[in-house]
Amino acid sequence: MSRRVVVVGGGAAGMGAAGGIKAADPNAEVVVYTGFDDVAYSPCGIPYVHGKEIDDFQRLFLASKQAYVDAGIDVHYNSEVTSVDLTRKVAYVAGAGEISWDALVLATGFNYADPGVPGGTLGGLYYVKNIREAMEWDKVLDTVGQAVVVQASPLGVEMVTALAHRGIETHLVDPSPWPMSEIADPDIMAPVEDSWRELGVKVHFNTTLEAFLGTDEVRAVQTSEGEIPAQLAVICTHKEPNNALGIAAGLEVGSTGGFIVDERMATSAPGVFAAGDCTEIPNGLTGVPLQGLTGSHAYAQGKTAGINAGGGSRTYSAVYVPWGTAAGKWIIGGASFGETTATALGVPFVVGSAQGISRARYYPGVKPVKVKLLAEPDSLRLIGAQMVGGEGIKERADFLAMAVKFGFTLGDLARMENVYSPAIGALNEPIVVAAQNGLDAA
Amino acid sequence: MSRRVVVVGGGAAGMGAAGGIKAADPNAEVVVYTGFDDVAYSPCGIPYVHGKEIDDFQRLFLASKQAYVDAGIDVHYNSEVTSVDLTRKVAYVAGAGEISWDALVLATGFNYADPGVPGGTLGGLYYVKNIREAMEWDKVLDTVGQAVVVQASPLGVEMVTALAHRGIETHLVDPSPWPMSEIADPDIMAPVEDSWRELGVKVHFNTTLEAFLGTDEVRAVQTSEGEIPAQLAVICTHKEPNNALGIAAGLEVGSTGGFIVDERMATSAPGVFAAGDCTEIPNGLTGVPLQGLTGSHAYAQGKTAGINAGGGSRTYSAVYVPWGTAAGKWIIGGASFGETTATALGVPFVVGSAQGISRARYYPGVKPVKVKLLAEPDSLRLIGAQMVGGEGIKERADFLAMAVKFGFTLGDLARMENVYSPAIGALNEPIVVAAQNGLDAA
Repeated sequence: MSRRVVVVGGGAAGMGAAGGIKAADPNAEVVVYTGFDDVAYSPCGIPYVHGKEIDDFQRLFLASKQAYVDAGIDVHYNSEVTSVDLTRKVAYVAGAGEISWDALVLATGFNYADPGVPGGTLGGLYYVKNIREAMEWDKVLDTVGQAVVVQASPLGVEMVTALAHRGIETHLVDPSPWPMSEIADPDIMAPVEDSWRELGVKVHFNTTLEAFLGTDEVRAVQTSEGEIPAQLAVICTHKEPNNALGIAAGLEVGSTGGFIVDERMATSAPGVFAAGDCTEIPNGLTGVPLQGLTGSHAYAQGKTAGINAGGGSRTYSAVYVPWGTAAGKWIIGGASFGETTATALGVPFVVGSAQGISRARYYPGVKPVKVKLLAEPDSLRLIGAQMVGGEGIKERADFLAMAVKFGFTLGDLARMENVYSPAIGALNEPIVVAAQNGLDAA
Repeated sequence: MSRRVVVVGGGAAGMGAAGGIKAADPNAEVVVYTGFDDVAYSPCGIPYVHGKEIDDFQRLFLASKQAYVDAGIDVHYNSEVTSVDLTRKVAYVAGAGEISWDALVLATGFNYADPGVPGGTLGGLYYVKNIREAMEWDKVLDTVGQAVVVQASPLGVEMVTALAHRGIETHLVDPSPWPMSEIADPDIMAPVEDSWRELGVKVHFNTTLEAFLGTDEVRAVQTSEGEIPAQLAVICTHKEPNNALGIAAGLEVGSTGGFIVDERMATSAPGVFAAGDCTEIPNGLTGVPLQGLTGSHAYAQGKTAGINAGGGSRTYSAVYVPWGTAAGKWIIGGASFGETTATALGVPFVVGSAQGISRARYYPGVKPVKVKLLAEPDSLRLIGAQMVGGEGIKERADFLAMAVKFGFTLGDLARMENVYSPAIGALNEPIVVAAQNGLDAA
């Protein structure tokens, strides 16, 4: 009899797992349960449709439902797995009874943290997640004059930019002194804030959300600094692991609330794997668990979980977290620690920074590229990087995460060769200059 | 008495050296001799002005002559150093007598290899090098209907693209079966050739140059496959080290004809350094000397030579040669070996390839990115990479050269984390997919 693997969740982790199971065991019976109407679309693209960078939500769909049928993956839409019994190895599906499994993959994702203020049940509060709901909200955006984005999380930063591009008077409310303050340093975000101002965005930092005001629909947002009229509030709070199902079944969770998994993405229960935002993964430098990484992490974790659930063997490593996104008119990104995070964790560091350019300075389309490198004081081993610029940020972030992982020093980076060709790269690679500046200062 | 360092050559290596000397010893007397009217312009930008991507030659100038005066660097323009006496430590300057030095940096660059066919003294033969001459040739281009580019070297590839963009009927003549055959693999260059065809370029591969035909001015180019009418021939032959001055003085040269230098960029004579295209540098994997690298290499070598000539200490390492350029409508690039080079050298390898994309597939401006990785068969250590695509090639080439240098394996690259954000990076990084494909095939 063929192996049956049940996957709970149809996001990047769940569908990565489904593919991983089939890759390891083409004969496996793969059954996916999702609470939504769709799988295989890109939720990360939603802000860009709202911002009109992308013209149609249909473009976010990556594969047809038939493609999964053809691949032998049995996806159950609008289905809720209400509980799992780890001893009997069965899952209970609302309205459909129980299904037994040989292995189980939990890819149950995240929930936005409750903003925890009065008025949370009013209309006009938008949690960006489901593409069908996003399509409805997109129509609402045409009617909105003023909007408040609650919290300058990465999604918050993208939504501020999107709503401003949409021509909506956009306010950003965040209790921190600058956007993405848990990840990015203030010098990296300063150009983003400048470009938001050019777009007419009103930022409210060091400002606490106090209430959503209105009768049925939100009409204003109450903050510690006053009331902001708004017909829409986009709630971009922290992503909390959605793991009530697994906790009820007895799976162990860690300090972040995410499932504890080993390098095979196996949970504390035999035959049960987990992947994506419902898990936590150790930081490669500190071992401190991290939760709420990116879609790319979720997909790779899902694939690893699926391969192992399907009888194969793959490991997933501790993470060094390259990150990046468009923000205002800039691209921001980095890897591992910034100055703010390192300082908060008590990790000592030296800094090397450089303001460089992406192409020859006379070549059309040349953009600034600022690189900041953090290194351990004595060894000068890289421990993190932050960047802001116009292009080439993602590729540098990927590289610098590997540089942290493999223990490159500022000296290694200062001696790095680089492509120089007017249309694609400047004589002086900003990473090299930043590393040399760090050496000179150390 | 202050140290006097004489630099022969005002290109990237020479001016890098001048800066390096001053960095090591701000009191040093730095005297630069150049045969040209200018220093501190970007010769690499010349094809792009011809192609009208850049609107004015003035934009290629990077610093004013006054800037060097202000920096205490004494540049002698239109000056020829006719000989150097390594025992007496003097240089002889045509029309200006001798000048003594405490240290000497030779940055005498390259000459294009003589095409070695009849008609080489006709008018209408353009060797791309000097910006003042390029300005004159640019006027000629307005009068040219048909042009032949001789050899599909990197410069040849850039000039073909430029002349085609300029609306000139452009022919490319090369004895090899595909362009840049000494560096790039045919699968990498195929899209470039396709895009040239779209621009109306006529390629003549496996075709030998036999003569330039004409009375005073070239009127046609004779090849093994027939006669090509042309009012202009752009000679893009191999760059040979221009080191007659050093050889006459007794400096040792290596198998490529370039000066042999140690890791301090010191030649065989005490106090004499060399940098740039007149030198040869070992390949990091094979130790085989390479000559004729890029402006970025020349500048870094010059800086190293200058710092050491100025009494400081810096080393330059063996090279892994990240490379890249615009070609037709694509960007090509790579690091270390391609399949063709590895095969020619008898280096065994396995290959992992992937056709990926630069952004989310639904995001405006998304471009294809093909990555091909070469690895040692048993260890699966990376030995080279080649790429063709629309963006992000330079940054990946820089990274992959470091990956070769530091012995990353296909497994390391397959487990690499990557930024996923719709506007800047796809869910699947092409390097990761190529590495995984290589693992699956190995």
